[in-house]
Amino acid sequence: MENEDQIYLKEGERFDDLERNGYRIIQNPEKFCFGMDAVLLSGFARVKEGECAIDLGTGTGIIPILLRAKTKGKHFTGLEIQPESADMARRSVAVNGLLQDIDIVAGDICEASKMFGASVFDVVTTNPPYMNDRHGLRNPELPKAIARHEIMCTLEDVVREGAKLLKPGGRFYMVHRPGRLVEIIQVLREYHLEPKRMKFVHPFVDKEPNMVLFACSRGGKPQVRVEPPLIVFEKPGVYTREITEIYGY
Amino acid sequence: MENEDQIYLKEGERFDDLERNGYRIIQNPEKFCFGMDAVLLSGFARVKEGECAIDLGTGTGIIPILLRAKTKGKHFTGLEIQPESADMARRSVAVNGLLQDIDIVAGDICEASKMFGASVFDVVTTNPPYMNDRHGLRNPELPKAIARHEIMCTLEDVVREGAKLLKPGGRFYMVHRPGRLVEIIQVLREYHLEPKRMKFVHPFVDKEPNMVLFACSRGGKPQVRVEPPLIVFEKPGVYTREITEIYGY
Repeated sequence: MENEDQIYLKEGERFDDLERNGYRIIQNPEKFCFGMDAVLLSGFARVKEGECAIDLGTGTGIIPILLRAKTKGKHFTGLEIQPESADMARRSVAVNGLLQDIDIVAGDICEASKMFGASVFDVVTTNPPYMNDRHGLRNPELPKAIARHEIMCTLEDVVREGAKLLKPGGRFYMVHRPGRLVEIIQVLREYHLEPKRMKFVHPFVDKEPNMVLFACSRGGKPQVRVEPPLIVFEKPGVYTREITEIYGY
Repeated sequence: MENEDQIYLKEGERFDDLERNGYRIIQNPEKFCFGMDAVLLSGFARVKEGECAIDLGTGTGIIPILLRAKTKGKHFTGLEIQPESADMARRSVAVNGLLQDIDIVAGDICEASKMFGASVFDVVTTNPPYMNDRHGLRNPELPKAIARHEIMCTLEDVVREGAKLLKPGGRFYMVHRPGRLVEIIQVLREYHLEPKRMKFVHPFVDKEPNMVLFACSRGGKPQVRVEPPLIVFEKPGVYTREITEIYGY
């Protein structure tokens, strides 16, 4: 088994256990590991039986793999611009025996609707780069920088392509930073993705949120439910029950 | 004293203690009493020394009176369309000896910038009617209905007039319902009132918010701070410390 596993791993990579269906994921700590953002988004998104979903900027493939474990969706696609990450994600899909259920495609979010066509998915998920020009940029060539900064695509690119990919009434799920809330809402509306649910994630109950989750409906009516806050830590080092449930511990 | 007080009261009215500077307010429970919304807004808004503020749709005058108690603002104006409420607010100002500091003006929010001029206030506060056509309307003539439903003015009227009244860089503070968050943000931006702080008010930590507080800057840059949630009850019937501090108990 040890030897068989090594077929899947390249230098610097390791397996991490996802605590779901026995699934594992390949990561390279030197490059980019998935964060709590992706896990929380996979707990917030809803993929119904028989639906098809695409994840824009899938990185290690964490979101399609978790959604495959948690939902009854029919098929999942992960689009990733960095060939190395896409290759790693594809190997994770293979090692979990999910090649029939999950496609990992190497390509540019900005071209997504040309690649896949318009109005073809029921669900779009995305954990896009959070930082734009107003944040300091360093090492723009590194995989981490591309995942975190709007180097290869902007918020508007992700929203525009997501809206095009979705069937009418389809759902768009995104995790982002609260500091960009106002801009995000404006861009979503511009592309007729109406926010229907929002959830703020606070590290502690008395702290500002550091993430916000959006569920939007393509062409929905304007009325949003702001959900109870998601609190990460009960006290330092101790997760709340909600977090441990999402993680499946 | 008892008799002297009665000079200020009309039938059905009573004094309520504000727990601030010994101030009292005249209310008529048959018509409309101020809610927690107004008190929380007065705790959220900042009026600096020497600044002038106007409250759009002041009702009983609760917000100017509380801001006069809590801040070092130079002068406060309350604009109210219902003559009976304006009269009641004016008597509350008088009974507290604040006639020099607070003007209560009877008039229509839709005409505010014509009445007062453009770019004249440092701060605008407003606790406007929350409900629009999508909510069931009843008794459109009653004072409570006018205070709660967009009968005499819409959200856009309040925002447009608020923006006109403010000096460049002036601050706009509003309390509203989270369900209309998306629409609110779009209207605020349309009139160049950039949200800079937002705070959600949750009845309990595990419940959805039922109010949201906005602090906007006229012509500000797009970056918002979502603050820690404001939780009202620690357990049923017991306020959290944050609430008792705002109320001044």
